[in-house]
Amino acid sequence: MSKDRAGAGSATEPTDQLAMRRANLTRALRYIRANGPRSRAAIAAATGLHKTTVSSLVDELSARRLVRDTGLEYSGAAGRPGRGVALSPDVGAVGIEINVDYVAVHGSDLTGRTVIQKRVGFNAMRGDVERCLDDLTAVARRSLTALARRGVTPIGLTVGVPGLVDTARGVVVLAPNLGWHDVPVVARLARSLAPDLWIGVDNDANLAALAEHAGGVAAGTDDLVYLTGEVGVGGGVILGGRLLRGADGFSGEIGHLPVDPGGARCGCGQVGCWETKVGLAELVRRATPDAAYDLDQDPVPDPEERVREVARRIAAGDRASLAAVAEIGRWLGHGGAVLVNLFNPRVIVLGGYFAELADHLIPAAQAGLAGLAVASTARRCHFVASHFGFTAAARGGAGVVVDRMIEDPTGFPLPRPRTLAAV
Amino acid sequence: MSKDRAGAGSATEPTDQLAMRRANLTRALRYIRANGPRSRAAIAAATGLHKTTVSSLVDELSARRLVRDTGLEYSGAAGRPGRGVALSPDVGAVGIEINVDYVAVHGSDLTGRTVIQKRVGFNAMRGDVERCLDDLTAVARRSLTALARRGVTPIGLTVGVPGLVDTARGVVVLAPNLGWHDVPVVARLARSLAPDLWIGVDNDANLAALAEHAGGVAAGTDDLVYLTGEVGVGGGVILGGRLLRGADGFSGEIGHLPVDPGGARCGCGQVGCWETKVGLAELVRRATPDAAYDLDQDPVPDPEERVREVARRIAAGDRASLAAVAEIGRWLGHGGAVLVNLFNPRVIVLGGYFAELADHLIPAAQAGLAGLAVASTARRCHFVASHFGFTAAARGGAGVVVDRMIEDPTGFPLPRPRTLAAV
Repeated sequence: MSKDRAGAGSATEPTDQLAMRRANLTRALRYIRANGPRSRAAIAAATGLHKTTVSSLVDELSARRLVRDTGLEYSGAAGRPGRGVALSPDVGAVGIEINVDYVAVHGSDLTGRTVIQKRVGFNAMRGDVERCLDDLTAVARRSLTALARRGVTPIGLTVGVPGLVDTARGVVVLAPNLGWHDVPVVARLARSLAPDLWIGVDNDANLAALAEHAGGVAAGTDDLVYLTGEVGVGGGVILGGRLLRGADGFSGEIGHLPVDPGGARCGCGQVGCWETKVGLAELVRRATPDAAYDLDQDPVPDPEERVREVARRIAAGDRASLAAVAEIGRWLGHGGAVLVNLFNPRVIVLGGYFAELADHLIPAAQAGLAGLAVASTARRCHFVASHFGFTAAARGGAGVVVDRMIEDPTGFPLPRPRTLAAV
Repeated sequence: MSKDRAGAGSATEPTDQLAMRRANLTRALRYIRANGPRSRAAIAAATGLHKTTVSSLVDELSARRLVRDTGLEYSGAAGRPGRGVALSPDVGAVGIEINVDYVAVHGSDLTGRTVIQKRVGFNAMRGDVERCLDDLTAVARRSLTALARRGVTPIGLTVGVPGLVDTARGVVVLAPNLGWHDVPVVARLARSLAPDLWIGVDNDANLAALAEHAGGVAAGTDDLVYLTGEVGVGGGVILGGRLLRGADGFSGEIGHLPVDPGGARCGCGQVGCWETKVGLAELVRRATPDAAYDLDQDPVPDPEERVREVARRIAAGDRASLAAVAEIGRWLGHGGAVLVNLFNPRVIVLGGYFAELADHLIPAAQAGLAGLAVASTARRCHFVASHFGFTAAARGGAGVVVDRMIEDPTGFPLPRPRTLAAV
């Protein structure tokens, strides 16, 4: 191909060479990520690149601290032993999910190893957006510092939000349950964090779907829907291995499917949305009416604590709690049938509280699916419970920083050596 | 890149060279299709391929009769005049849509020029699958012959069906309104048609969406939903310029969205599906109850004739007809809001009868969309009427044969010279 390329005229060559160099950096990184530590010879054999080219690529990636020699001898595909090259455990990323009643944090290094993970109760429902953003900024700063303290220099941060997000502009267009309209999250965080940190914002369900696809219970399934099980219920859809975004990045808003014209008013302003039937607030209202959502509570109970209480009551045979999960399971099947008819996924991953109560919800949901969706499709689609609990979106948030780095390694500033100044 | 490639070891080279040759044939064909007749020099300049490579590629494509010299001098991007190379008008494809009450045929050459187009009334509702397939085979044979008579050798045929289609196996898994279950359409047609003809089957809405995306009213819009407006209502969804298929190829089945638990029974067996609210049978039932669908009619009225009758009654101020389109418009908005929340398209293309009555349906539908979908998204999505009427799916069926040829030109047998024997 280089001969043909030369025929195209020298004017375009420097650009082509730069583009090819960047593409080759990405090829090498993708191969190392997919296959673990590999020798330069193995990378050359697998990518079809020349060994001297691979050495030069690895040198550049090492200088950027994105890969390092493992020191291990590794027998590559070409059969020749050599030093192994691995993604760097000294550089990493943070994902933060902000939701109605909690903030979740996940920090990992480039290899995907979890370095920090936590969730704290949080009351976003008071509707004071500025205070909420101040709190978010403080959480971000503490998380980046915590990652750096453990020897991992953060190169980026993604915030997950339950709402419609304009990822290109870094703006949350609408998050009904947070009371947010046109909130410039990225610009707001950038004012207070290190100038060379990459910052992004995305829909929480999208991030969670990416986390599940990359390494969750549905990993290897290229057609899946992830459902957040929180106060709001959102969907992240991956078809053909690719996240669906739609014209504005807003696809997957299953929570606002109208299902009950005589139902309750939703945070979005409509009546009878699906999330008013299956959201966490509805579970709490039905199963533990004595502990319903209260805007004046401070701190609000952690959602996992609320769900544990429901599980305790179910175990004790409490009729209200048993009736609640049966009813919610039926409505899950109703929404699942719509997802099957419209997206035709192989798996519907239940996240958040759905996962915690999966044993009680899935039988009714699966039966509803079989009864409502167009015949044979439904039998081949299964509800499965996420293993990531309430941390899937934060995990996905850290993951997309790594994805982005791999697709454009020269687009990230060289991370400074391990020091808190980088935070 | 060829230098790097050489380092990968000679064992893989022949495969690589063949793969590269095929990829280059496709690059040349794509460029010619997108840009019209172009000189060899222009193709070389635009694709970055060497001129001698381009000449050799064009020779092979000419031998396969897929391109031909136009004889015109054309001033290419490189500024040098030369003989223009164009997609061949001597080779083409046929698309056939079979529906509840009509069969539509579209035949075109590789340049996209329409060569034959017709629609005939057809009664598929009697449920005799074998007779239906016999009729389909006869229509296919006549259409291929008609194309050949006009000097265009057919290389392929795609059948569009209103139902769930396993495109890989060439089987219609379920077409409720035709009464089809697991019908091996491709194998059945292959028994009776020329052995070297490529034959495919796909969902009618998918084919129509591809036709709209390629050259219809929404051409250039990469995020669109096409709605068939027939007795059944199906959706074809293109997001990011790519047709959604899902795990089994069944995505977009919007017609069976449950919207009215107290509604009428649908052909799929469920109650209150969206197509029982907006399908052509419901329009006819509401607007012209004296001319409702009757399984014993033979021949059945052409759907366009039924719709013309409704339009006449609306023009005459008939209250039942006016109420019918107002009610159907409202339900279109209801379904449109679901499509907007789940797929986030920029345009919803109304096909079939919806297009014929668009002036009466769109205002109510657009208002419903704005009222029901999650805020700002809906204002940026518009219902538009297809210009293809009831022929969009057949048009798309011919188009996918051409798409397939361009992506894999060596996968098609060399079309025999212009003769009816090829049919």
